[in-house]
Amino acid sequence: MSGTKWVYAFGDGSADGKADMRNLLGGKGANLAEMSNLGLPVPPGFTLTTEVCTYFTKNANSYPDDLKDQVAAALARVEKIIGAKFGDPKNPLLVSVRSGARASMPGMMDTVLNLGLNDETVKGLAKASGDERFAYDSYRRFIQMYGDVVLGVEHHHFEEILSEHKEEAGVALDTQLTAEDWKKVAKAYAAKVKEELGRPFPQDPHEQLWGAIAAVFGSWMNDRAMIYRRLHDIPVEWGTAVNVQSMVFGNMGDKSATGVCFTRNPSTGENRFYGEYLVNAQGEDVVAGIRTPQTLTKAERIEGNGDLPSMEEQMPSLYGDLCAVRERLEKHYRDMQDMEFTVQEGKLWMLQTRSGKRTAKAALRIAVDMANDGLIGREEAVKRIDPMQLDQLLHPTLDPKAPRHVLAKGLPASPGAATGKVAFSAKDAEDLAAKGEKVILVRIETSPEDIGGMHAAQGILTTRGGMTSHAAVVARGMGRPCVAGAGDIRVDYRAQTLTAKGEVVKAGEIITIDGSRGEVMLGEVKTIQPELSSDFAALMEWADAVRKLKVRTNAETPEDAATAVKFGAEGIGLCRTEHMFFDPQRIIHMREMILAGSETERRAALAKLVPYQRADFIELFTIMKGLPVTIRLLDPPLHEFLPNTDAEMEEVASAAGAKVAEVRARAASLHESNPMLGLRGCRLGIVYPEIYEMQCRAIFEAAAEVAASSGTTVTPEVMIPLVGTKKEFDILKEMVDRVAGEVGASVGRTLKYLVGTMIELPRAALRAGDIAEGAEFFSFGTNDLTQTTFGLSRDDSGSFLQYYQDRGIFEKDPFATLDREGVGELIQIAADRGRATRPDIKLGICGEHGGDPSSITFCAEVGLDYVSCSPYRVPIARLAAAQAALALAGKGKLFVDA
Amino acid sequence: MSGTKWVYAFGDGSADGKADMRNLLGGKGANLAEMSNLGLPVPPGFTLTTEVCTYFTKNANSYPDDLKDQVAAALARVEKIIGAKFGDPKNPLLVSVRSGARASMPGMMDTVLNLGLNDETVKGLAKASGDERFAYDSYRRFIQMYGDVVLGVEHHHFEEILSEHKEEAGVALDTQLTAEDWKKVAKAYAAKVKEELGRPFPQDPHEQLWGAIAAVFGSWMNDRAMIYRRLHDIPVEWGTAVNVQSMVFGNMGDKSATGVCFTRNPSTGENRFYGEYLVNAQGEDVVAGIRTPQTLTKAERIEGNGDLPSMEEQMPSLYGDLCAVRERLEKHYRDMQDMEFTVQEGKLWMLQTRSGKRTAKAALRIAVDMANDGLIGREEAVKRIDPMQLDQLLHPTLDPKAPRHVLAKGLPASPGAATGKVAFSAKDAEDLAAKGEKVILVRIETSPEDIGGMHAAQGILTTRGGMTSHAAVVARGMGRPCVAGAGDIRVDYRAQTLTAKGEVVKAGEIITIDGSRGEVMLGEVKTIQPELSSDFAALMEWADAVRKLKVRTNAETPEDAATAVKFGAEGIGLCRTEHMFFDPQRIIHMREMILAGSETERRAALAKLVPYQRADFIELFTIMKGLPVTIRLLDPPLHEFLPNTDAEMEEVASAAGAKVAEVRARAASLHESNPMLGLRGCRLGIVYPEIYEMQCRAIFEAAAEVAASSGTTVTPEVMIPLVGTKKEFDILKEMVDRVAGEVGASVGRTLKYLVGTMIELPRAALRAGDIAEGAEFFSFGTNDLTQTTFGLSRDDSGSFLQYYQDRGIFEKDPFATLDREGVGELIQIAADRGRATRPDIKLGICGEHGGDPSSITFCAEVGLDYVSCSPYRVPIARLAAAQAALALAGKGKLFVDA
Repeated sequence: MSGTKWVYAFGDGSADGKADMRNLLGGKGANLAEMSNLGLPVPPGFTLTTEVCTYFTKNANSYPDDLKDQVAAALARVEKIIGAKFGDPKNPLLVSVRSGARASMPGMMDTVLNLGLNDETVKGLAKASGDERFAYDSYRRFIQMYGDVVLGVEHHHFEEILSEHKEEAGVALDTQLTAEDWKKVAKAYAAKVKEELGRPFPQDPHEQLWGAIAAVFGSWMNDRAMIYRRLHDIPVEWGTAVNVQSMVFGNMGDKSATGVCFTRNPSTGENRFYGEYLVNAQGEDVVAGIRTPQTLTKAERIEGNGDLPSMEEQMPSLYGDLCAVRERLEKHYRDMQDMEFTVQEGKLWMLQTRSGKRTAKAALRIAVDMANDGLIGREEAVKRIDPMQLDQLLHPTLDPKAPRHVLAKGLPASPGAATGKVAFSAKDAEDLAAKGEKVILVRIETSPEDIGGMHAAQGILTTRGGMTSHAAVVARGMGRPCVAGAGDIRVDYRAQTLTAKGEVVKAGEIITIDGSRGEVMLGEVKTIQPELSSDFAALMEWADAVRKLKVRTNAETPEDAATAVKFGAEGIGLCRTEHMFFDPQRIIHMREMILAGSETERRAALAKLVPYQRADFIELFTIMKGLPVTIRLLDPPLHEFLPNTDAEMEEVASAAGAKVAEVRARAASLHESNPMLGLRGCRLGIVYPEIYEMQCRAIFEAAAEVAASSGTTVTPEVMIPLVGTKKEFDILKEMVDRVAGEVGASVGRTLKYLVGTMIELPRAALRAGDIAEGAEFFSFGTNDLTQTTFGLSRDDSGSFLQYYQDRGIFEKDPFATLDREGVGELIQIAADRGRATRPDIKLGICGEHGGDPSSITFCAEVGLDYVSCSPYRVPIARLAAAQAALALAGKGKLFVDA
Repeated sequence: MSGTKWVYAFGDGSADGKADMRNLLGGKGANLAEMSNLGLPVPPGFTLTTEVCTYFTKNANSYPDDLKDQVAAALARVEKIIGAKFGDPKNPLLVSVRSGARASMPGMMDTVLNLGLNDETVKGLAKASGDERFAYDSYRRFIQMYGDVVLGVEHHHFEEILSEHKEEAGVALDTQLTAEDWKKVAKAYAAKVKEELGRPFPQDPHEQLWGAIAAVFGSWMNDRAMIYRRLHDIPVEWGTAVNVQSMVFGNMGDKSATGVCFTRNPSTGENRFYGEYLVNAQGEDVVAGIRTPQTLTKAERIEGNGDLPSMEEQMPSLYGDLCAVRERLEKHYRDMQDMEFTVQEGKLWMLQTRSGKRTAKAALRIAVDMANDGLIGREEAVKRIDPMQLDQLLHPTLDPKAPRHVLAKGLPASPGAATGKVAFSAKDAEDLAAKGEKVILVRIETSPEDIGGMHAAQGILTTRGGMTSHAAVVARGMGRPCVAGAGDIRVDYRAQTLTAKGEVVKAGEIITIDGSRGEVMLGEVKTIQPELSSDFAALMEWADAVRKLKVRTNAETPEDAATAVKFGAEGIGLCRTEHMFFDPQRIIHMREMILAGSETERRAALAKLVPYQRADFIELFTIMKGLPVTIRLLDPPLHEFLPNTDAEMEEVASAAGAKVAEVRARAASLHESNPMLGLRGCRLGIVYPEIYEMQCRAIFEAAAEVAASSGTTVTPEVMIPLVGTKKEFDILKEMVDRVAGEVGASVGRTLKYLVGTMIELPRAALRAGDIAEGAEFFSFGTNDLTQTTFGLSRDDSGSFLQYYQDRGIFEKDPFATLDREGVGELIQIAADRGRATRPDIKLGICGEHGGDPSSITFCAEVGLDYVSCSPYRVPIARLAAAQAALALAGKGKLFVDA
């Protein structure tokens, strides 16, 4: 490790690092370096790399030997640029110490500001700033922050002291306290720290600095950060960098300010400068939402009927400087930027820039606009969209015509609509959600500790905070609708109520929020299907031009099929025939059939199912207009269909004309210890051939009828489930061919169809070469293949899957994201062997993974012909398939890896 | 196919074929050829090859073009040798037409004798033999046999005619009928054939011949033959040959005879000539058992107090000829021969020779005697014994002479015989056994809770379940006789009775089961204890000298371990720790542990289990005297341990000091849909580390204690079950190492041990390369690996496994014989990848397959280090391993393929 560069300097028009060193310097550090290189006004500082974090974590919280020297050198450079000295009582350099990981993790890790202050340097700051009150306010803030974050002295101690002092001084607001008051408070804070820890608050700035650095590196492993990483799939190995930067102050009076801005609107994507700022404030004041922020532009102020002047009006020259930075950064990064700035006594400083988080709608608009403007190419636009984010656009929104009883208004912080029971704590939200309830989490404001509850909730409502508040940022990232800063609502945690316009809503009552309009309604409000924008259409068209994989859908109902076609599905990849029988009218006969004691009884029950089955297929074939339809023959693990209650037993008995006792006995005899591994799939079709025969007859009769009536060619793809041996497949293919021949003869023509199989057992994957001698297509049933490869049932893994993920045993839930190493190898083997036997064999995937972008990438790599997913995932799959094609063509990294 | 030789001639001191052409000529044909070549007196004839059969089956029962010519030429050769002509009215040649497959299938296929007789040639036969009665008796026999076998006229028609004639003639016995009578009978038979078929009985000998040939080839596909092939694992592709041979007659008067003999005693293996014969009789008379046969030797007659003279006494010269043949054939074939002969008017003819079937005891004695006499080598002796046959020798058996009142039949699930009082619950069985009673446990089916009762019982009878049901598997493992799936028996637990064939047996009454034959008898049937002969010891020693695979045992009780060591086990390959807790005293605490609501409660329950666990290991290590012991940490699918009844719930609650309702709720929460795929194996060890820690502590403390007290080195092999990922293994190995370190520190020395894993999931097999970075050994858990590879649970496959085997979908039960194509490939992959990472990795197998000879051959091919099987299978595995080693060394074919 000797000779390793651990520390990268930036500021004063140059830097050791640059933007593409994000893995080493973290996002913040890399972008500070880049801005420095661009000559933008960045307060000088330096970055301790993520490698230091890794070293720290692996070596019992210690550092590489040569780190101290490198930090000392970098600090000296900052002192020289600023013209101040760390710990100098007369002209002290103050710094901030902030985390900065490869991926943004807002609020998850610790930050310390104003570091370098002590009983001596605070006097120097007072003198240098000419503002003693500011200096002591800064000092007490530092003691509080450092005491809390680095020394672990609980927050409430400081709050109590401050309350006492305000009472003593007879004032209500912090702003009414004088320099003398803050001096006393600072003293009392320091005394409290000594009382709590048994040692004085550190006066040595270097001790302070190393304490803060250790706290930030340590915070990489705190609970909040671990939960966030799990939710966002961020590997623990990445580590965080630490940025030490000279302080600039937005709270040095009325010529100072601080703000957050986006180069375009992050909610709509509109190409207008957008942001919030506060005069005479520090950055955390904007984020905390304690003061209502001012708008950046005049236009924004007017649209929002704001009382307070915009920056454009109040500081026109500085606003001009900021606009120039906006232009510069967006052109440079070719992406919408989220920037933080501070104005200290009339000078603009840039504290951060990064690609801004945005809603799906905004992401689409920005990408399409930028491509149309020539700033980026179309393929780049395709790569810009997180496929999973599209989910937001595809789901229902509130029906504008439905009556709304608007209880309160807040900020439209994250789009979409949600209805649920009110929960006032993250824990309550999680508990309710665990019971299958839909929940709206209602908080005065959220903090990183609420992450779990936010995830569990359908939507989030806060009464305090702006568009860039914690709640707003996190909700947008998660795709949860959010109304923020609904100030008219009063929340009483103790009474478990919220009150607005005189109405009291208790915990557990139902409300609806409209995150696109910032409205809160009592009760449930009707929703409607989303309308897909022209941006969506354009991007999908570009994606379709690029992708190689076809996208089909898993559907058996006409509604699902129609939805999927609307979303661009190119066929049905999986029609689960047993799902057609869950309807109450039908399930009786399904149960009759399963519980039949003889072939005769079974045929009688089947005869009752035939008309439904044929009608279903006629409808599906009609909707699909000649697109391929893959129909899986019956595959129920029996337990899914067996009657449970006495009433159900009686119902089945009466339908079958049998005695209840007989039905009960037969149900008991069909009980299986492990139904997933029992008499199901093609085993049913082999033991009871009449079942599959009935289904094939219904399929072919329907196909013939639709072909005759519509004039389109209908080519059903008959799929045999759970095949493990070539013989099983061959026996059943012979049956399918025979029935097709019989139906064809009766309608007087030869029917077109394919016969193939699911590959969903490890043995089928290994024997794919044999099976392909008869099978014309394979569809990878990755749900079952994952179950058997891992020896892990999806139903039963709940008790430890989370535990496994938390400990990194499973990086991801293997039922959500395909396990490349194990299941993936079997798929690769099956694809290779299948193609070796039958070069034109059609290969697809129809497990849940067919709608997961990372799994789709794998499918593209293996060279499958199509993926099949649930209707609402079709656009996601189209986009993911396009990104996969670009990645395979060597055109840049995948979004999913970014 | 042109130019193919379809017909092979034999007789008159030479032949076209020879003994090693068995695949082409069938066993009978090859040996007839060989005997001809040896110059033995074989009636001349020819063999139509098995390839003709294959052609016939595949081509809609037609023949190759050039077959007719080849048959005609061969027939002409026979005519020339015999000096008679086929169809010649004066001097007719008569032939037999017999099947002859590669493997003996006694009585399964069709035979026609006396072919060539018609209304004219019968007169010629009468003249040539000088015996009109004989001629017409032969003719009517031919019409009957040909009518039945070739023409499909049912047997009873002929029997009715014969009865009528005897009544008319006023006689009781066939022997009382005269030549005239037989003439009339023959005429009536022919008339009946015409009446039934609408066409006359064929008079043309060539038509007769081709009809008979077609019937024999066709009989290859009859039901009897198909069932026989399935039972004996004979592939349908082998086909049968047809042997056409000139007739010789043992029924031409008192100078004629027919007999069957063995070169040694097939029951005891004693080296004495042994056989039976009948004067003036045809071969089928001996087989049919209508007349009491005479002995071959005088000594035999005297020992058996026989009335009738022996051949040695009655036909001393011919007996001398036969003894010479015996000498010649046994020396030539170097194996015990089973021969058929006929004496026609004072001349000896040999009709068949083949390796004789023999009991296990005889097989051992013959092989050892022959090796000791230098007739065969020791390796050859080792190859001669069917390993599975040894099973007969290791269990008590019913005295074959004792009368049996068979009440019902089931599957021969575990060999051996047992007698005892009927008990309908495990508890009753244990209670009775505790009183010193012998018990047969009778259950509809068994579950793991019955283990105690199964162990306490002498034998087990179930009315449901197959060869791989819980009862069958466990019983075989324990060496308890078991009859499974005796479906004709109805068990009424409430009434405490079983009913079969109208007989009611109450609890406490005595029954006997024969697990080798699947029979259930009322009352006691005398049994005989096995004696392990010196032949057995000698053969095992020779086998051990040859084999490369080590043989270990699956054992956890001291009894099993001791039994296995007695049978030659070289270690324990699988000690299932959870099985140590089925004892009623212990299972309460096991349940307490599983149902604990917190770590504290769980530790409390574990603390109660520790003393048992440690004591068990001390006992095992002591018995095993330094041999390796592989201990699998806890691996229960939870459902095997959860309490079911109210009484059990209360018991657990009271032991744990908890409320019954709590226990019930917790048990319900642990219920799994598919427990085989749930929270079990290493998943338990990861989620509840304290369980595995307790077990490791017990293992290492026991090892240290035994090492100290005995002075032998004890090297436990700690095995982690159900690993699917490297991380699981690594986490648990770290734990094992830590506990070993702690125990080592407390006893003041470094402990020796290995840590490895089961490979029992497809994913583990695929990732074996990773896993081997930490794992020092792999043990293939082929039960689970088969389950997951096929997606097929052993418990639930019973409903269709037999159906699948009957239809050839599974050639063999994959839980009994390892599936080479699927499971085998995964084992090969895992072995290759494991060795690539760690060349000295120890590889073994511990599933049920470890005791199956064909699977053992596979293990040898893959190069595993050892197999592990149930104690009673250890000798079988030793022998199978030796045979596998010989086969791999190119020293002949395996017995299992013979």
